[in-house]
Amino acid sequence: MPKDVAVIGVGQSAFVRGYQGSIRELAFEAFREAMQDAAITVKDVGASVVCSAPEYDKQRTPSGLIAEYLGLNPQPTFIVENVCSSSTSGIRVAYGLIKSGLHDVVVVLGFQKMSEITSADSQERMGRGADIMFESPFGTLMPAYYAMHARGHFAKYGTTEEDLALIRVKAASYGVLNEKAVYRKAVTLEQAMEAGPVCSPLKVFDCCANADGASCVIMASADKAKEICKEPVYILGLGAATAPMNVTGRTTFAGLDCARLAAKEAYEMAGVGPQDIDVAEVHDCFTIAEMMAYEMLGFAEPGKGPELIRNRETYKEGKIPVNVDGGLLSKGHPIGATGGSQVRTIVLQLRNKAGAIQVPGAEIGLVHNIGGVGIYGNVIIFGR
Amino acid sequence: MPKDVAVIGVGQSAFVRGYQGSIRELAFEAFREAMQDAAITVKDVGASVVCSAPEYDKQRTPSGLIAEYLGLNPQPTFIVENVCSSSTSGIRVAYGLIKSGLHDVVVVLGFQKMSEITSADSQERMGRGADIMFESPFGTLMPAYYAMHARGHFAKYGTTEEDLALIRVKAASYGVLNEKAVYRKAVTLEQAMEAGPVCSPLKVFDCCANADGASCVIMASADKAKEICKEPVYILGLGAATAPMNVTGRTTFAGLDCARLAAKEAYEMAGVGPQDIDVAEVHDCFTIAEMMAYEMLGFAEPGKGPELIRNRETYKEGKIPVNVDGGLLSKGHPIGATGGSQVRTIVLQLRNKAGAIQVPGAEIGLVHNIGGVGIYGNVIIFGR
Repeated sequence: MPKDVAVIGVGQSAFVRGYQGSIRELAFEAFREAMQDAAITVKDVGASVVCSAPEYDKQRTPSGLIAEYLGLNPQPTFIVENVCSSSTSGIRVAYGLIKSGLHDVVVVLGFQKMSEITSADSQERMGRGADIMFESPFGTLMPAYYAMHARGHFAKYGTTEEDLALIRVKAASYGVLNEKAVYRKAVTLEQAMEAGPVCSPLKVFDCCANADGASCVIMASADKAKEICKEPVYILGLGAATAPMNVTGRTTFAGLDCARLAAKEAYEMAGVGPQDIDVAEVHDCFTIAEMMAYEMLGFAEPGKGPELIRNRETYKEGKIPVNVDGGLLSKGHPIGATGGSQVRTIVLQLRNKAGAIQVPGAEIGLVHNIGGVGIYGNVIIFGR
Repeated sequence: MPKDVAVIGVGQSAFVRGYQGSIRELAFEAFREAMQDAAITVKDVGASVVCSAPEYDKQRTPSGLIAEYLGLNPQPTFIVENVCSSSTSGIRVAYGLIKSGLHDVVVVLGFQKMSEITSADSQERMGRGADIMFESPFGTLMPAYYAMHARGHFAKYGTTEEDLALIRVKAASYGVLNEKAVYRKAVTLEQAMEAGPVCSPLKVFDCCANADGASCVIMASADKAKEICKEPVYILGLGAATAPMNVTGRTTFAGLDCARLAAKEAYEMAGVGPQDIDVAEVHDCFTIAEMMAYEMLGFAEPGKGPELIRNRETYKEGKIPVNVDGGLLSKGHPIGATGGSQVRTIVLQLRNKAGAIQVPGAEIGLVHNIGGVGIYGNVIIFGR
């Protein structure tokens, strides 16, 4: 079990709709919290990796602006981006920078102020996240892609709309407890089932919402971590894979290959299996995405995901607690910041500092973060 | 002298004005050449790092599109970006991914199709590469920033417009020999001095031009390189630094701190000094940028850069040959591709395969690549 690189600090802004400050201020909110958590100063930082999807920023090359504002000059900085999985790709990059010996301490700062542009523009730009020559001309937007996956899962395994609704009911029950979430109200099964359609079979409560937010994960070499940190949480395994951008290249609609392959790689590197995971954060941009994650990560056999949620096995008290911070469905999804927010939740869990949502005795945690229309898959396994 | 990571293949498209194909086709031109050079197949590749400044792309998240087109699925891919220095930052990231053991072989693919948008839009977006709250409202564009640096150098050291013109004359004399360059005509000192102003004291021939192009650098662990490559070129040292985005934070206008600090780090890592460099590629987006590079890299003492060019010491036959492929001034500057093109030139030199521009017996080479308005500095030292 490799323990070469550790997380020594985590931070997150509140995720909100319509943040009133600038992107540098938004980034600072997460950075300050993570720096206080790590109890280090800017002089200890060797480099920063800034994660943001550029379609939402008026500022070009925001890494330089943010590094300056955070006091992270003259340390190198650059953008790492693959839309919704940008900040876990940033963590993968930081792992390499640290383990290779180039840097001892690296800050991974994810942010997105999606409200910089209008909601209509946001949809248009998300559309251009699909192949602009062969696919986006047909007008397929994110809910449509995941609706295809829902239909695929329904057809192959008999999954129902109610199974998906149960996932939102769970997410909302934890969103109530999360001070940093956009949505903090409980949702009943009836409410979820009666909500209006977005793209059939997905209804309003099956979809996460755009949000503004920032996250920060500070990483260090194991030697440095032991020196400065009381509670390092180690990266035990990383996996990453990419699926064809064009949906015609997809081998199935009942799952996501990029997640399955990334999980396999991460488990192998960590030397653990799905049964060893005590708590997980998965990319629930849509309820069907969480359902597929259960199966891609091996928490359930293919087609058996619905049983997990029907039996409440992914609740905090269940066999494999998933998204007990409310998930993207409750927190909102500021795309460049999302992966870092997932990592923060897992790190707090493994430190036994997660408060009301603490999974007792959690020792090994997993983050699953997906980018684009099921294109980019990152899985990271953490341990004490 | 570390020899852990090597370059095993390099490729470049022609750099042109107004490329007629799509970005995937442009990327393929560089990729194909690099893969043939490395004599490997897509199955040998562990990951791809795509480098592109997003303000020019209609396609969002182009890494997924390009990885699919190049046959690089299901390997992970993501964007690394800091404008004009994106592809050397990509190389830094790839170095970490390889030396950390995550991947054996990584493709760094840089591209830019700047003609996707109009020239006016390009200027506007470049303007937004400065702080959009405090600086770009004043309308300062790239030539204006470098004009300030030229005035700073003139005032402090007595450098003249003719000194800058000499740099273009040298660049053009090598551009004539570069089949992949946009500009392949000789420029006389008179022509350079009589050219119209862009932003005083910079005239037309002091400025490089936007271009469309792609570059590809394939990197491997030393073990893998020895196994599959006859002529690996090793990365001996890397340095990177960032200056404040706001010019008010700059300590001098007669130089670039980010380049000076990056060079210091790269020399220390490689265990060599400026006197050991046999051939260099520097970021000559403007003639003054090359002049400052002479001094920031230690090829000349501060203020003595003009003597180097007056004495033709940076010509092929001189003490320290610089930009003997014509530089950005001749080749054009497709920003995401530029650093990789510089690396290609140095790799060919160190293999003794640079043809008419070969520096006899070159054993150690250096690349200096700058991003933004003098914000991001990357220096990489290569050796046989």
